[in-house]
Amino acid sequence: MLTHLDKDGNARMVDVSAKEPTRRVARAQSIVIMSPQTLELIMNGKIPKGDVLGAVRIAGIMAAKKTPELIPLCHPIALKQAQVEVEVIAPCKLQITGEVVAFDTTGVEMEALTMVTVAALTVVDMCKAVDKRMVIANIHLLSKTGGKSGDFVWEEENYEVESAEVESDDR
Amino acid sequence: MLTHLDKDGNARMVDVSAKEPTRRVARAQSIVIMSPQTLELIMNGKIPKGDVLGAVRIAGIMAAKKTPELIPLCHPIALKQAQVEVEVIAPCKLQITGEVVAFDTTGVEMEALTMVTVAALTVVDMCKAVDKRMVIANIHLLSKTGGKSGDFVWEEENYEVESAEVESDDR
Amino acid sequence: MLTHLDKDGNARMVDVSAKEPTRRVARAQSIVIMSPQTLELIMNGKIPKGDVLGAVRIAGIMAAKKTPELIPLCHPIALKQAQVEVEVIAPCKLQITGEVVAFDTTGVEMEALTMVTVAALTVVDMCKAVDKRMVIANIHLLSKTGGKSGDFVWEEENYEVESAEVESDDR
Amino acid sequence: MLTHLDKDGNARMVDVSAKEPTRRVARAQSIVIMSPQTLELIMNGKIPKGDVLGAVRIAGIMAAKKTPELIPLCHPIALKQAQVEVEVIAPCKLQITGEVVAFDTTGVEMEALTMVTVAALTVVDMCKAVDKRMVIANIHLLSKTGGKSGDFVWEEENYEVESAEVESDDR
Amino acid sequence: MLTHLDKDGNARMVDVSAKEPTRRVARAQSIVIMSPQTLELIMNGKIPKGDVLGAVRIAGIMAAKKTPELIPLCHPIALKQAQVEVEVIAPCKLQITGEVVAFDTTGVEMEALTMVTVAALTVVDMCKAVDKRMVIANIHLLSKTGGKSGDFVWEEENYEVESAEVESDDR
Amino acid sequence: MLTHLDKDGNARMVDVSAKEPTRRVARAQSIVIMSPQTLELIMNGKIPKGDVLGAVRIAGIMAAKKTPELIPLCHPIALKQAQVEVEVIAPCKLQITGEVVAFDTTGVEMEALTMVTVAALTVVDMCKAVDKRMVIANIHLLSKTGGKSGDFVWEEENYEVESAEVESDDR
Repeated sequence: MLTHLDKDGNARMVDVSAKEPTRRVARAQSIVIMSPQTLELIMNGKIPKGDVLGAVRIAGIMAAKKTPELIPLCHPIALKQAQVEVEVIAPCKLQITGEVVAFDTTGVEMEALTMVTVAALTVVDMCKAVDKRMVIANIHLLSKTGGKSGDFVWEEENYEVESAEVESDDR
Repeated sequence: MLTHLDKDGNARMVDVSAKEPTRRVARAQSIVIMSPQTLELIMNGKIPKGDVLGAVRIAGIMAAKKTPELIPLCHPIALKQAQVEVEVIAPCKLQITGEVVAFDTTGVEMEALTMVTVAALTVVDMCKAVDKRMVIANIHLLSKTGGKSGDFVWEEENYEVESAEVESDDR
Repeated sequence: MLTHLDKDGNARMVDVSAKEPTRRVARAQSIVIMSPQTLELIMNGKIPKGDVLGAVRIAGIMAAKKTPELIPLCHPIALKQAQVEVEVIAPCKLQITGEVVAFDTTGVEMEALTMVTVAALTVVDMCKAVDKRMVIANIHLLSKTGGKSGDFVWEEENYEVESAEVESDDR
Repeated sequence: MLTHLDKDGNARMVDVSAKEPTRRVARAQSIVIMSPQTLELIMNGKIPKGDVLGAVRIAGIMAAKKTPELIPLCHPIALKQAQVEVEVIAPCKLQITGEVVAFDTTGVEMEALTMVTVAALTVVDMCKAVDKRMVIANIHLLSKTGGKSGDFVWEEENYEVESAEVESDDR
Repeated sequence: MLTHLDKDGNARMVDVSAKEPTRRVARAQSIVIMSPQTLELIMNGKIPKGDVLGAVRIAGIMAAKKTPELIPLCHPIALKQAQVEVEVIAPCKLQITGEVVAFDTTGVEMEALTMVTVAALTVVDMCKAVDKRMVIANIHLLSKTGGKSGDFVWEEENYEVESAEVESDDR
Repeated sequence: MLTHLDKDGNARMVDVSAKEPTRRVARAQSIVIMSPQTLELIMNGKIPKGDVLGAVRIAGIMAAKKTPELIPLCHPIALKQAQVEVEVIAPCKLQITGEVVAFDTTGVEMEALTMVTVAALTVVDMCKAVDKRMVIANIHLLSKTGGKSGDFVWEEENYEVESAEVESDDR
């Protein structure tokens, strides 16, 4: 004891002050799996708590702005654009896609991910009285551009392989 | 125009003032899928941004308290307990389990779900410099007790069936 | 100097710990005055920023929950219900009415007023690109029940008189 | 169902990343109407909750900084100045004027409006024990400069006309 | 690896749901040490940023309400009273005393401490243009009542002894 | 009455829009004094609420980002780096040092001070069940660079002198 604590392993918000600001775009997605009946109620505006899709978009955008309050080591970033899209991709699946844009020294991946995640949680909240078995799945980055680490585009194939590999270990 | 707008479909925070407060417990989980190398770095405390598991627990607990700020129609609830556990369940999978307790007129499902979700986002944030292809999956309620709608326990079998059914429609 | 500062005039959050919690209901309103063209765009869903009425309801409800963060001496109150209604009351006037309910030792008037006020600001934000001359007016309590200070109902006549009296002094 | 949802009408935070940052100034006002006795209590520092005008200025400035948390589609803006002034303009009217300045790609109208609005709500909160019939009125932009949409100055005459036109429809 | 992580040492918000709510009072203090000239400017209302003592009280009260957002493992508590007092106790010392009251299953020590701490930081912020060498000192609990762990009153003597003991090791 | 209120003494957020942004660095410290037994429990990871040092770092960094929400007249600043270090400097003293960096038109002293202060409060929260007599002391700026007011480095000697001077007046 009494010595200077080793700094190894200590959480910190890394220094991005020396980087040049560039235009940053990130896209992410989430999927909400539910019973087909629940999805029909959503799409027909019959969920008792109110219009789900409108609330989901607003909740997602507001959450994107809250990202640095939620994720401990995220840098505060002034978002210049935020947008949420919702699409039915299967009788029991709602896909939420989000895009955020900033002009900053660090990327906006976490803002896009937080946006689609809180949007998905909002679906669950509004529908949980009619369906307790909803699952949020497949939250991941779709693409990012800007910054010196290079652009990134999600490739589905690779993930399928990786997913197959680990399937046997899972649960 | 000029008429009273139809209230059908309008979002609202439903009235829970007439319900008796009871002890409410909710448990939820999320899974973060990543490369085995990333998971090893986490478990060995070698992620450059700092100790992942410590940050994840704190971020989850703090997010649970923020649930009514994030989810538009959630009632504010004074949490009486919040706890996050992290477990390696496969060479590429980290499972995050969370439990929250309150004594209130409404349930704490959304608090538990928000906790494990923001915890998972924190894993992604801390590791994204070494792995951009992480996926957050399988976010769902594990159990809830308290309240007049009855207790709920997640049953894995059913979900597997439902999941299989819809697999072909997916993407 | 050097003496104990006089406490007269010092802001403080008054003690409500000795009061019995009762059911509290408060209703409030605000009016947004705009050009008839703007109001038509809103009602027809043609405002470029998106669906105004849906955003207004969500913004109002979320702001009601933030009241103690905004109004320095407001006590934190766990709202049990919150609801916003929007009505066209003239070709250029949108009336926003809000109701909040709590079971607490202090009233929810400020929550209802904050809800309809932020809802009105949201109308202005979404429409300001097409109409910079919007005015928010007539924000006041409509009624309150619960608590030992007695119930209150707004009476329009009195206000008209008072309003007439002061008109000449105004600007 | 199952098709890509139409994006028409969906709320979104519009893209301002391509605009050049310029100096932005916005001024706004609100008026609080109350009984002359209440206004005298305020001006003489006799309101039991404490010094009203000091609290009002602080509450307004802090609320200006919270604008993007309150107004769903507002961009986060780093305010460079914020100031609230309070003036008695009639025996029963307190006028609150606010100015905010930023250097950004989008305007600060909503920040100025939110500032004078929350300042007015703070007056109501601090005085509601002595006067339940206060009204907040005439919240509008006074001027804005900066940005390519041009400068704007509020002209009272026009509004009086518009106001007269609609008076008969009102309530 | 692959085993259930040991829970020892994991941060968690402890369970207080089984405890009976009682009236809780906590008092705390902080001291701001500054040059006598700075203190005179404060007391004479000559600090360029504005009235220091008014801002300090509001900032302290608002911070008390934010305690569970700031301190990771603090339970959310609905404060029933909050009050800040400021006193000059030496030509270069401003003492800030705060009291908070709640009716809850857990204590409000952290709320009182956070209140006087943020109040002290506000003094520093408002005066730092004229005095960069201010020090905040002696932040501690003064007393607490309520709860089964018993009442607590700070005793100055003991602390002086303890303080003396460690003085030689310090710096 | 009825006249324009004198603006002297009114709190306001000063205008920093005309200043050029430069790299700003600020360092600050706080010290938590506790019983040697408590400090040993912390360093050995035996505090029942969980790992103290990990929570302290996260709490400090998250609080630094919240500075403009806490300190009324602080300008919002996008931090580019934030880091907390903890060191045992005596058998009963934990020293918390923090550094923040930004690229802005105004300094980050308050961010550094808020970071080490909330970090210290977090120590107190996590250990208060075992030690109610903890004291937070010696919170002050260590250094600042950037901005036209010049660099600043804390000099311990001066403070000791000043401290000695005022000791007799203290309590």
